[in-house]
This record gives sequence, C-alpha cells and structure tokens, in this order.
Amino acid sequence: MQKIRSGTLAALLLGSILSPAIAQAASASDTAIREAALKDDVAWDITEGLTTEVGPRPAGTPLEAHARDWSVAKLKTLGFSNVRAEPYSMPVWLRVRDEVSIVAPFPQKLVVAALGNSGSTPEAGIEGEIVYFPTIADLQAAPDASVKGKIVFVSHDMVAAQDGSGYGYYGAARRQGPSIAARKGAIGILVKSIGTDHHRIAHTGVQMWADGVTPIPAVALSVPDAEQLARVAARGKPVRVHLTAVSKTLKDQPSGNVIAEIPGSDPKAGVIVAACHLDSWDQGTGAIDDASGCGIVAAAALQVAKAGTPRRTIRVLFAGAEEVGGDGGRAYFAAHGKEAHALVMESDFGADKVWRVDFTLPAGQEALGGRIGAALAPLGIVPSRDKAHGGSDIGPLVEAGVPVIDLQQDGTRYFDIHHTPDDTLDKIDPAQLRQNVAAWAVTLNLAANAPETLGVN
Amino acid sequence: MQKIRSGTLAALLLGSILSPAIAQAASASDTAIREAALKDDVAWDITEGLTTEVGPRPAGTPLEAHARDWSVAKLKTLGFSNVRAEPYSMPVWLRVRDEVSIVAPFPQKLVVAALGNSGSTPEAGIEGEIVYFPTIADLQAAPDASVKGKIVFVSHDMVAAQDGSGYGYYGAARRQGPSIAARKGAIGILVKSIGTDHHRIAHTGVQMWADGVTPIPAVALSVPDAEQLARVAARGKPVRVHLTAVSKTLKDQPSGNVIAEIPGSDPKAGVIVAACHLDSWDQGTGAIDDASGCGIVAAAALQVAKAGTPRRTIRVLFAGAEEVGGDGGRAYFAAHGKEAHALVMESDFGADKVWRVDFTLPAGQEALGGRIGAALAPLGIVPSRDKAHGGSDIGPLVEAGVPVIDLQQDGTRYFDIHHTPDDTLDKIDPAQLRQNVAAWAVTLNLAANAPETLGVN
Repeated sequence: MQKIRSGTLAALLLGSILSPAIAQAASASDTAIREAALKDDVAWDITEGLTTEVGPRPAGTPLEAHARDWSVAKLKTLGFSNVRAEPYSMPVWLRVRDEVSIVAPFPQKLVVAALGNSGSTPEAGIEGEIVYFPTIADLQAAPDASVKGKIVFVSHDMVAAQDGSGYGYYGAARRQGPSIAARKGAIGILVKSIGTDHHRIAHTGVQMWADGVTPIPAVALSVPDAEQLARVAARGKPVRVHLTAVSKTLKDQPSGNVIAEIPGSDPKAGVIVAACHLDSWDQGTGAIDDASGCGIVAAAALQVAKAGTPRRTIRVLFAGAEEVGGDGGRAYFAAHGKEAHALVMESDFGADKVWRVDFTLPAGQEALGGRIGAALAPLGIVPSRDKAHGGSDIGPLVEAGVPVIDLQQDGTRYFDIHHTPDDTLDKIDPAQLRQNVAAWAVTLNLAANAPETLGVN
Repeated sequence: MQKIRSGTLAALLLGSILSPAIAQAASASDTAIREAALKDDVAWDITEGLTTEVGPRPAGTPLEAHARDWSVAKLKTLGFSNVRAEPYSMPVWLRVRDEVSIVAPFPQKLVVAALGNSGSTPEAGIEGEIVYFPTIADLQAAPDASVKGKIVFVSHDMVAAQDGSGYGYYGAARRQGPSIAARKGAIGILVKSIGTDHHRIAHTGVQMWADGVTPIPAVALSVPDAEQLARVAARGKPVRVHLTAVSKTLKDQPSGNVIAEIPGSDPKAGVIVAACHLDSWDQGTGAIDDASGCGIVAAAALQVAKAGTPRRTIRVLFAGAEEVGGDGGRAYFAAHGKEAHALVMESDFGADKVWRVDFTLPAGQEALGGRIGAALAPLGIVPSRDKAHGGSDIGPLVEAGVPVIDLQQDGTRYFDIHHTPDDTLDKIDPAQLRQNVAAWAVTLNLAANAPETLGVN
C-alpha cells in the first residue's frame, strides 16, 4: 500500500463500495477524449503494420533496425514532432537451432526454444541423463552430486492470473534455474516454459548468468512437452535426452530507441514519457509484446493532441532491446535522465482491457489520482491501493523517483502467448485495444494538463 | 433422414420435447454398466500409455509397429481373447523437412507442415511468386495462365461446429487444392490449415493426387501464418516465397491391424466390431486422433465383459494406417469381410463428450435404437434423425451394408487440434473420456445382447 495517497484512495474506495455516486464526476473534456479514443484506428494501424511489414524484431539485429526506420517514418506521418532514433550498441545473443529428443526409454521429439544467453551446444548436440526437479526449490536443495554431469529438468506450477502475478514467482525457474544448475555441475537444463497455455510452443525469455558461472545450454520445453517428460520420468527408468541448442553471440551490435513528441506549452512543467518497446522475441511477430503497446501510447498521445496543445510535452518512447535486459531504457536514462520528467508510464502487457489503475504520485498531489480515477471509471477501470511500478523501459526513471502511473491490463491470457511463436496479430482484440487507447488518452490528458507540480523538476 | 426408423424416432423425439417422462426407461443392468463405466480407468490408461510410451505413430513406420506390439501386450494384459496383429504392407510418405519464408516484400518465416503425399522440393527449396485465392472455388475458376509457374496460396473460412461439419466442406482446399493447382501449372501450393484455432501450428493431412497429375510441393500454413500472408498479399506488391518441403516415399512398408475379442455365447449372432485407429500423424502424439478412440472402445468392451458374457462377440479393431488413406480398414475387410458382422461402430473424433447418437439399423429393428436411446439419455445424449455413417476404418463394412451406430462426440474444439503438434494428452478431459466409455459400454451391451437379428448374416 502506498502511504502518500492513502487518504484520497481510501475515500475513493469507500465511495465506490458504499455509493458510486459519491465518486468525482469526469469532466466534459475527459468524456470527449474518451469517446474519440474509443473510435481510434491508429493503435491498430501501428500494431498491424509493425507485425506485418516488419515481423519479428530481435534486439540488436537488422530487423530491429528496420522497425526503427519503420517507426520513425510512421510517427512523422502521424504528425509527431522531434521524431528521431537514438542509437546505442549492445551485445546480441542469436538462436541458430534448437532440437531436443528423448533418446530412451521412449524415443520422441520435444518442442523447445533456447533461452536468451543460453550456452551453445556443438552442432551435433549433447546427450545426457535427466534429473527431474518439480520446482526450483527442489533443484536448489539438491546435492551437487545428484546433478553433476546430468541435464537438469526443472518444472513449476504457474497458473493464469488477471494481474499476471505468477510470472515473477514462477519465472524464477527460467531466471535463476540455469545458473543454479550450472553451479551444481549440470551439462544442460530444460525448463518448463513460463507459460499458462497447453500448446506445443515453447516460451523463450532472457536469463542472465550469475557471476562466475560458466554458461550451459538452457532451453524451455513447451508446457505439453514438459508434462510429457515428467510422465516419462515418473516411469522410474533412466531418461536420456539429446539436446541441441546452437547459438552465437555478437559484440557491439547497433540498437536504438525511437522518440517522438507532442510538444507542450509549458517547458518548465516537465516531460511525460509514454513508453513501450519496439524489439520482440524472434519466434513470433511481437504483437502483444509489444507492438500493441507502441500502438496504444502513440495513439493516445495523438488523441490528446487532437484536443489541444497540452501543458506538458508528451514524449513517446519506443524503446529498443527491452526483452534482453532493458538496454533501451538505460540508454534513454543516460541520454535524458537529467531532464525534468513530470511522469512516466509504460504499456507492455498486451492489449487486453485495462481493469485497474495504480499511482505513485508525489505527496500532496493525490487529487490528480482522484481526477484520473473518475475519468477512467466509465471504462470499467478501478483505482487500486497498490503502488505503480512501471516497466523496464522506464525502470531507471522510476528508480530515480519520477512519478508513475500504471494502467494495468488484463493478463489472464497474456502468459498463454508471451515469448512464443503464437505472439501474432490475431491475438489482438481491436475493441480492447481501443479501450486501452481511451484509458491512456484520458490519463495522459489529465496528467499533461495538471496544474499540480509533478516529477522531480 | 433415415426412413427405416422414422416412426420410432419421431415418437422418441416428440416424447423428449413434450414430456421426457414418456421416454422408455433404461433397465437396471444398463444403469449398472453406465455407472461402472463412469468410473473407468482403462481408457485413460491406454490413451496415456500410447501417447507417452510410443508417442507419434506414423503409418507404416517402426513407430506404428511399436504401437502394435504395445497394444497386443496391453490388450492381453487386460484380459481380451484372440489378441493378434494382422500385417499388411503399404507405401509410405515421410516428411523430412518443411520450411517456408516470405522473401519479399516483408521477409519473415512462416510456420508450415507438408501435406501427406506432397511432392518433394530439392534440398535447397524453390522460390516463386504467390498467387492468392481466398477460396478453392476462386482457384478452380482461375485461368491457367494466372497460375502457371507460380506458388498458389489458397485460403478458406472454416469455423468450429459441434458436429465438425465444416471439415468436409472446407477440407476441399487441402484434398483437391493441390491437384487443381498442379493441373494449372503451379510449382507449389500453400493451403491455409484446415483448422479452427489461432496457433502457430500447421494442420497436416493426407491428399491424393488426381489421375495424371504430377505432384508438386504442397504444404499447410498455420492459421495465423495464412492470415499474415493474406495481409501481406493485400498490400498489392508481388509476394515472393521460398518453399522447402523435402520428403521421401518408400514402397511396401509393414503396417497392420490389432484385433482383440470379448467372445460371445452365440457364434451365429454375428460379430460386433468396435474400431479406432492406432496410427497417428507425425507432429503430435495422436491423443485425440486416435489413442483416445482406442482407449474408449477397449474400455467399453471390457465393461460389457465385466457384466457377463455377451450374446455376440465384441471385436475390438485398432486399425493401422487410417490417416493416410484407410489401408487398415481395407485390409480388415479383405481378411474378414465375409464373416457375419452384426454391427460396426468407430470412435475417431477425439474424447469430448458424446452428445448425439445416429443409427443405421435394419428395417424392423428400430426397437434396439429406442432401447439404446433410453439408456444413453442419462448421459446427456439425444438420438438424431441423421443416418449413421461410421468412419474410414469400418468404411468397407458399412458400404457392404453392415448396420452402424455413431456415438457423435462434441467436435467444437476438435479442429483446433486435429493433425497438429498440439494433439497431445493434455487435450483429453478424463471426465469426458469416461462419459464416452459409458456411452459405448451401454450401447455395445445392448447391441451385443439384442435378441433382434442384426447385420448381414
């Protein structure tokens, strides 16, 4: 719970529980912006265009560069000011070929995808015996001798949740599992996909090797394949697996952010950053992660501009290289961190409807949260008592103390699709996408025109 | 509508509409068998075992042979009599490697699977310009000159239906599309998967070349990839595709049926065949198609046996090579077609609940349909006015005039999964599987003990 706004929020919450009529009424201009945004076509246009004309956009590759060019051209066409790419360079891990088969006792292929920064096997792959751990805690507790020379298989029991909260907890199997297994002497690791679907598509994702650990091949199994391997292991016979995960790593590859602005009338009031990320994993076309986020923030900024010049500049940030560790967010902060930032927001959780709004506002400025809550209520969005945290593209700004608002999207099906080949345009519901644009437009408009002092300026 | 039983059925239908109480009551033994079958574990045991311990079971391959050995051992253990494999040989088409990419204007990979009997490309693949037809009728109507030297892309608009009826109509794109395209001079064909899902998994399936047609490479695109290619084509620029579909064809490979019996007390009353198929496509583990069918028919036969020796022998047929053209069904007919067959039934539509029962019974024997309908009603199953047709494993017997009963399963999600990598055990709902066993056990019991003369004996 966030103390700085507890009074206002408690009143709002009580209001909505005891009598909705007590809640603050939205203004006529909020209503007009909301209604216009609910007819928006720009968010779809950007999402459809990026996923169709560019497709997959892995960080630091020519495909991501193509996406920057595409975005700069599109944002200029849409009427943004100060549109530019801001380059930086970074190391790049590239998937070459992933194949896993059970060799014994029941030979069959398994569907896999190497995790980011996986160690590479030789072209011919490696073979080893499986040691199965139902949870990462079981792996952590295992004596090194039981793991040494073997291929670890670690599972988990993630289930879908509206707020996506299972990802942090269960995602440890992917994020920490490989380093733990490598430290104990494993020759490779298979991780049950951090996903909530039952399709033969593996969820990739980044993992960082702990200090001093020598990388081993680390791959995700699709959920059905992980269940299959657990059934095979449950037969009690030694299970041997052949694992090929060939990858390569390149130094100093070009990546970059794309920035575009709706200039405000009061340069001293600080900039509002509306962020998404332009890169995607390689398996899908990055529709929910995160072309739709870029569509939403750009479309919402334009809806605000259509209503008149805002007090504050709205700066749209299409960040690069979010998936592989947030290089774009850090590069933005290095270049712009000392500018006055009034507020930051990020859209990076798909395109299903916004259902909740969280605030981290300066002490004394809770009234803005009240006005935003009232304007969002007709969209089916409720204020929460949780703090807003933002996402990794704005992480360094949030850490530096810039106020942040989170428009929380429904994540019930997000981890069915996340980081898989299934992240394609058909997963975007145009009606829910428009609801996102409306929620963002209303919020950006109120924040950009707020008379309160915001941010660290 | 089937005239031979219209009187009985009309009465039943009217009964169920006007007053359910008029419907014939199920007997105590029907109730006992149904309740016991609703606790069945055998169907799951067979489905889990075949999909886990054997996995994919392509016709005419060592994997299908392994499935026969596995089944013979399992059916003997379960107490069946006269358990044996009946071999035959057949030509076999084998997938080696399938890859398709858009080369221009928007380079990206597409998810595909070659169709059965596809022509093979060279190892390096082929490249060509796409010519797009929204429906097979558009392809059929196109002048040869518009197709010659190009790669045809044919789509369709199949939607899910409870009775699966879209498969016959829309499946023409897969079944006839390749021959039509080849006749018009196409160098390859991409067919939108005959499926109702939105996952990056392509639906393979057999297609037979029309007489005199030279095979061309023929592949299915996943539904999202077909939609993507249609969007790309809609931009109006020439679309070039690189297509690799390497395959090989082998002559005279060993396949076979597996047969097991519950012997009846009256050899003159004719045999009842309860069929499924043991082979599967190569991409999944053939859970809904058709390990579950084999689980259902074997489990149901055992439930009947537990209740006492039936009048008629129940012969379980795990047919080989259904997916590639029905070689197993034809081999069974060649070996056994002259024996007296009282009735045939087949389970080959997944494991979701039975919701309807269709009959094709001899004139004058409609009362059996009435008794079966009454016994099935507590399971939520209604008699229809449609004729029963059976499936391809029993096709030759049905054509020869053997009576047939179809326990129609809910196919709403069947074509999300059919012939894809997603056909795995997690798609089987144990509760619905047991409802199938109960429906089959009640039906087999009433038919096996029916005093009526059935079949062609």
